Amino acid sequence: MKTLNLDLQEKSYPIYIGQDLLSEGELLTKHISGKQVMIVTNTAVAPLYLKKVKNLLSSFELAQVILPDGEKYKTLGTLNCIFSALLENKFDRSCTLIALGGGVVGDMTGFAAASYQRAVNFIQIPTTLLSQVDSSVGGKTGVNHALGKNMIGAFHQPKCVLIDIDTLDTLDNQQYSAGMAEVIKYGLLGHLNFFNFLQENIQDLTDRDKSLIAEIIYHSCQYKTNIVAQDELEVGKRALLNFGHTFGHAIENTLGYGTFLHGEAISVGMLMAIKLSQLEGYLSSNQVVQVQDLLEKANLPISIIGKISVTDFMKAMLVDKKVINGNIRLVLLKELGHAFVCDDYKNQLLNQVINEFCQ
Amino acid sequence: MKTLNLDLQEKSYPIYIGQDLLSEGELLTKHISGKQVMIVTNTAVAPLYLKKVKNLLSSFELAQVILPDGEKYKTLGTLNCIFSALLENKFDRSCTLIALGGGVVGDMTGFAAASYQRAVNFIQIPTTLLSQVDSSVGGKTGVNHALGKNMIGAFHQPKCVLIDIDTLDTLDNQQYSAGMAEVIKYGLLGHLNFFNFLQENIQDLTDRDKSLIAEIIYHSCQYKTNIVAQDELEVGKRALLNFGHTFGHAIENTLGYGTFLHGEAISVGMLMAIKLSQLEGYLSSNQVVQVQDLLEKANLPISIIGKISVTDFMKAMLVDKKVINGNIRLVLLKELGHAFVCDDYKNQLLNQVINEFCQ
Repeated sequence: MKTLNLDLQEKSYPIYIGQDLLSEGELLTKHISGKQVMIVTNTAVAPLYLKKVKNLLSSFELAQVILPDGEKYKTLGTLNCIFSALLENKFDRSCTLIALGGGVVGDMTGFAAASYQRAVNFIQIPTTLLSQVDSSVGGKTGVNHALGKNMIGAFHQPKCVLIDIDTLDTLDNQQYSAGMAEVIKYGLLGHLNFFNFLQENIQDLTDRDKSLIAEIIYHSCQYKTNIVAQDELEVGKRALLNFGHTFGHAIENTLGYGTFLHGEAISVGMLMAIKLSQLEGYLSSNQVVQVQDLLEKANLPISIIGKISVTDFMKAMLVDKKVINGNIRLVLLKELGHAFVCDDYKNQLLNQVINEFCQ
Repeated sequence: MKTLNLDLQEKSYPIYIGQDLLSEGELLTKHISGKQVMIVTNTAVAPLYLKKVKNLLSSFELAQVILPDGEKYKTLGTLNCIFSALLENKFDRSCTLIALGGGVVGDMTGFAAASYQRAVNFIQIPTTLLSQVDSSVGGKTGVNHALGKNMIGAFHQPKCVLIDIDTLDTLDNQQYSAGMAEVIKYGLLGHLNFFNFLQENIQDLTDRDKSLIAEIIYHSCQYKTNIVAQDELEVGKRALLNFGHTFGHAIENTLGYGTFLHGEAISVGMLMAIKLSQLEGYLSSNQVVQVQDLLEKANLPISIIGKISVTDFMKAMLVDKKVINGNIRLVLLKELGHAFVCDDYKNQLLNQVINEFCQ
């Protein structure tokens, strides 16, 4: 097992990465201060790991909520189910919530914890590659609104993140690839060596070599903790982590949740950002091909499946947390492995990219 | 005009108290950093003051949401109306929300601001006595859940609080009295001199003497800012401000929102806490009569109107943020003007008080 520490003064917490961690009760229980524990999971994950996690917590007053599975349920309505369960079980401010599942479960459980009685503790046990390398770390929590993704939420840090790599054994290939999109993101935005490493090992990674998986998760989390420690509330540098996300969110919003997995939308979104970076003169066409090639080898989409009108896409882009006074700030690449926040790109080139990807 | 400062380091903010403040644009505008401003108000307040406030903000990109009036609308559903309005108007993270109204509007607007795009700025313009002396100051925001009052929320401090005493001119007597309950609370929990002052001046106060009103608002806010500055997140001393509230919330919850105004429920709740303090041997029966007398002169109820079963009341008390591990912590008085948090009261005496007030 490896441990990373996210350094945020009194809000600091460890990220445990390893195999068979769901058999080690103490890793989990030492981060629980009260008696009451609510496990929040979904219909896909509950049959696989709920019993195992409950076994670790037999000394606590335990309750559970099993949510429906899918991004389309990441709403205020579903959040209210968590609040109802907490209140029906008379859970008080000393309780701890545990998010057992992927990014949707983690984001909603975290926001429920941020808002229940004006904040209680929570712990992340991410069970998808995407949530292990991205959403479980850094304290971004929230739900979607019909008019925009992740528009309602809070910054609320967990007490620990427990990444048991063995939970990926039950993850289907599409979900696994979707997670790989966020892994590739770290290479593209900040780490050329890591990008090269991924290029070299993509075959073994799609074959699910566990030691390689442990390595890329550690590397991704290390990169993310480093950025979040410098800029928890995203007033600066943390925005770089949104590379591909303004485009990706617009894809998800216009296609409707469920057509693409989040990571798949991010794959296409990153490629759109890469193309714009090329048109702006930062990247060569050969570099674009390299990225496209890696995404394809990771079984990720490189074009939008389904029809989106250019106008709808533009509208959706305007509803994004990176928009300030109507200006869309984009994360582009200066070179492979070096992202920057850009707001003086040429609108005409942005339109060209959108036209190329939308029909 | 008088100004108080709530000292919370980088989150510090001023509280302006005076007459005709809604004519002074700069007081408001100097606390707005972006271009987009959303005024949140309700159907009762909008016809009275919305135009006036909009006039102060003509240089901004303005939008408004007019919510239905009443505690029963303080829900996640109504909150979502605010989010929809923000998104429909393409409001970004640099926007400012303005709460124009009483406690319900203030609590919901504050929580909307805390959660929209993971937090934007907001300003409080309280227009009821209750919100001017209590809920607009200190950053407690939130909504109710069917199973408990204020169970969902966040600590989120406003950029300023603008208390225009003239807005009380349009407040009906019942609402005015309800606010007086929270004023009397400050006397009871921390300030014998202030309690005596209220006893002496209660007739002029019910006659709405404006200079006296300004004085009690200033005094109440001063007391509250002092406590909040020491304990923003209510891990200690701030709990004293909940004097009467565990009983009061249980009354509201069992009677259903709308039967009693919040301040009216707090009036009875304080009297219940006072009676328990007497039974525990802290207060004399004469002191109980004094408090009861002041509440009556302030046109506040001293008994529960309507039937509540003892069992329902007990159940409702258990759903309260002051409950830890099933134990109800109560704020009692050691003497008039001196509250303390108590968890070793005799259960039998608590039952006696509940039996006396419920039928």
